[in-house]
Amino acid sequence: MPRLVMKFGGTSVADLDRIKNAAHKVKQEVDNGFEVIVIVSAMSGKTNEMVGWVQETAPLYDAREYDAVVSSGENVTAGLMALTLQQIGVPARSWQGWQVPLKTTSAHGAARIEEIPTENLDAKFAEGMKVAVVAGFQGIADDGRITTLGRGGSDTTAVAFAAAFDAVRCDIYTDVDGIYTTDPRIVSNASKLKKISYEEMLELASLGAKVLQTRSVELAMRFKVPLRVLSSFDDDISMNAGTLVCDEEEIMENNVVNGVAFVRDEAKMTLVSVADRPGIAAAIFGPLADAGINVDMIVQNISEEGRTDMTFSCPVDQVLRAEKALNGAKDSGEINYHGLVSDKDVAKVSVVGIGMRSHVGVAKQMFDVLSREGVNIKVITTSEIKISVLVDRKYMELAVRALHDEFELEHAT
Amino acid sequence: MPRLVMKFGGTSVADLDRIKNAAHKVKQEVDNGFEVIVIVSAMSGKTNEMVGWVQETAPLYDAREYDAVVSSGENVTAGLMALTLQQIGVPARSWQGWQVPLKTTSAHGAARIEEIPTENLDAKFAEGMKVAVVAGFQGIADDGRITTLGRGGSDTTAVAFAAAFDAVRCDIYTDVDGIYTTDPRIVSNASKLKKISYEEMLELASLGAKVLQTRSVELAMRFKVPLRVLSSFDDDISMNAGTLVCDEEEIMENNVVNGVAFVRDEAKMTLVSVADRPGIAAAIFGPLADAGINVDMIVQNISEEGRTDMTFSCPVDQVLRAEKALNGAKDSGEINYHGLVSDKDVAKVSVVGIGMRSHVGVAKQMFDVLSREGVNIKVITTSEIKISVLVDRKYMELAVRALHDEFELEHAT
Repeated sequence: MPRLVMKFGGTSVADLDRIKNAAHKVKQEVDNGFEVIVIVSAMSGKTNEMVGWVQETAPLYDAREYDAVVSSGENVTAGLMALTLQQIGVPARSWQGWQVPLKTTSAHGAARIEEIPTENLDAKFAEGMKVAVVAGFQGIADDGRITTLGRGGSDTTAVAFAAAFDAVRCDIYTDVDGIYTTDPRIVSNASKLKKISYEEMLELASLGAKVLQTRSVELAMRFKVPLRVLSSFDDDISMNAGTLVCDEEEIMENNVVNGVAFVRDEAKMTLVSVADRPGIAAAIFGPLADAGINVDMIVQNISEEGRTDMTFSCPVDQVLRAEKALNGAKDSGEINYHGLVSDKDVAKVSVVGIGMRSHVGVAKQMFDVLSREGVNIKVITTSEIKISVLVDRKYMELAVRALHDEFELEHAT
Repeated sequence: MPRLVMKFGGTSVADLDRIKNAAHKVKQEVDNGFEVIVIVSAMSGKTNEMVGWVQETAPLYDAREYDAVVSSGENVTAGLMALTLQQIGVPARSWQGWQVPLKTTSAHGAARIEEIPTENLDAKFAEGMKVAVVAGFQGIADDGRITTLGRGGSDTTAVAFAAAFDAVRCDIYTDVDGIYTTDPRIVSNASKLKKISYEEMLELASLGAKVLQTRSVELAMRFKVPLRVLSSFDDDISMNAGTLVCDEEEIMENNVVNGVAFVRDEAKMTLVSVADRPGIAAAIFGPLADAGINVDMIVQNISEEGRTDMTFSCPVDQVLRAEKALNGAKDSGEINYHGLVSDKDVAKVSVVGIGMRSHVGVAKQMFDVLSREGVNIKVITTSEIKISVLVDRKYMELAVRALHDEFELEHAT
């Protein structure tokens, strides 16, 4: 029998009515002939409540106990979902991570999935179970202690189950109805994409379109699991609904640009006149990594007379820590520079599209538009399928709208 | 190293401050030289909330899913307690039922403990763990599914751990400071007992002094675990505090009577002129048991001319069901009687004392007092250490006070 994974996030199981609503979608897929593995999050708010308790109890908490506490929210919804399914005539049972077992590393609080043996669930499917409701976000380490996969780990759980059980698809039910060409709160005629490639989704997700956890998309790409994002509040669950994230080969005609992403609160930091020598980049970014700074874009100017300028971007709220780390490295003689300039008023705007690979001139088109609108570009970085620029934060919305228009994304599918 | 079990009920771990308060008591006992096993309930209210969700979802719920859901409250408090202990320098870790493992029957919702292997905890104690914080009320069945022991099961968990780990004592921390000679709300000079025998505690508990779960006292008696009830809101945790429930041999001088118990909402039902024959009691009480009636006292009059009267008591709110069951049995010819008289305005009053065994005349003294106060006795039953009577409900408080005075319980210890 074909198998399907359906994942319901916290807002989709926030109360008994919503659990009932989700259960009816599961029943439809059972009626469609699937054996279903349902992955559930905790009721929205519950995990945050428990994280709050742990942090208040012990600011430097034992991550093993953190995991034992915060994993309990998913156990509650898994049981309630199984009961709700039974109530509408669907043979279902709940599974906690250790019962499956979902085996992980022992990196508590941010464990990685190592293996999902299929024997236990397979045996129950063979006995007539139609739905296995699995508590998301949790697993078990070698020493028998409970682990969690980190926030948003339920998406990753879902994709891992789809891969392990060879599911035809992994449907992620959430509170948005798909992936949009950009944030509709900024561009009112943003359009919903029917399909998008894993690569594009990764660029969009990491750039701030917070629909799918990056790890889950990476995993789906690696195991070629078709991943669909759709709303648990719409009745339509046919393949017309939502956005399918899939291999680019399954997308007939790629748009040149599929989305415009942005990150509002960025900062640009420049080390002026750094002594240029082999290993200088490592000497600079080592201390920043140690200080936990999320460095994003990195640009190095052409070296003149043995000195160069090094520019990078990071979240605004990490600037103070970054300055401290760099000044420390300077004081200890690890690096040498004449000045450190921080610009806290920038934002990042990116265009993303798999079609760029075969279509030259996208960068030029982007720069032309921004120039026409009077938006000064401060930093540029590019990848095969993405072009990102830093601009003054006050021009961010203007830039996003102009680019969305220019690439005609209101008609994208 | 000597071991101690400390159990904290829901009101004792109701919030982070109370958990902190409880943790300090645990630390004191660690400082006193004990390795401690702490058993925790869920934060008060949490289990009821989850039971409510389950019942609303599925009135005839799958008890396996019920257990998976409602056991989660204890997991939260176990983790938080372990973190709190670590925070004050005590090496502690949490244990869920399946991690210990606490093995039970598969009677979900009301499982019985079968075995607690000590290897896992012993190994961690040997490595330097000072406190094992165990989630109460839960275990694991042979098939790997989570079970619960039924409401109040955390007391039973605590006693079972004390027996399995050969603890010197099991301390039950709760919201009362011990066992009283009667309910202080009815008799203002009721006095707290320093010691009481298991047998007496069983009679008092099942008669309505709802401090300890009956099962836990039975288990303590069977394994001779000294059981102490004390308040988690008092600072004193020395042996001066609370009430010790122990073997009668450890009580130097037994009081003749140690307590006056009562059950307010009882009903007396009489089957008038039942055809008396061998097996008639089974024929009457079989249908009542099938209907789930909690029959308490049973009295049969002397048989005259092949017919007899049969009287029993049960909770007032079960009278309608009892009448239905008995009329059904009459209609089907299983039993034959002339009349069925229900008196819904009675209460049960009992005096309990291990000293009665060696002290005749307690019954006479009890009846004299009630007679002197003008309280009519409707039914009498006796055991070796208890005399119970049914009286009109309106005289219940009067009877309790008069008996408490008569046996000088204000000076009991």
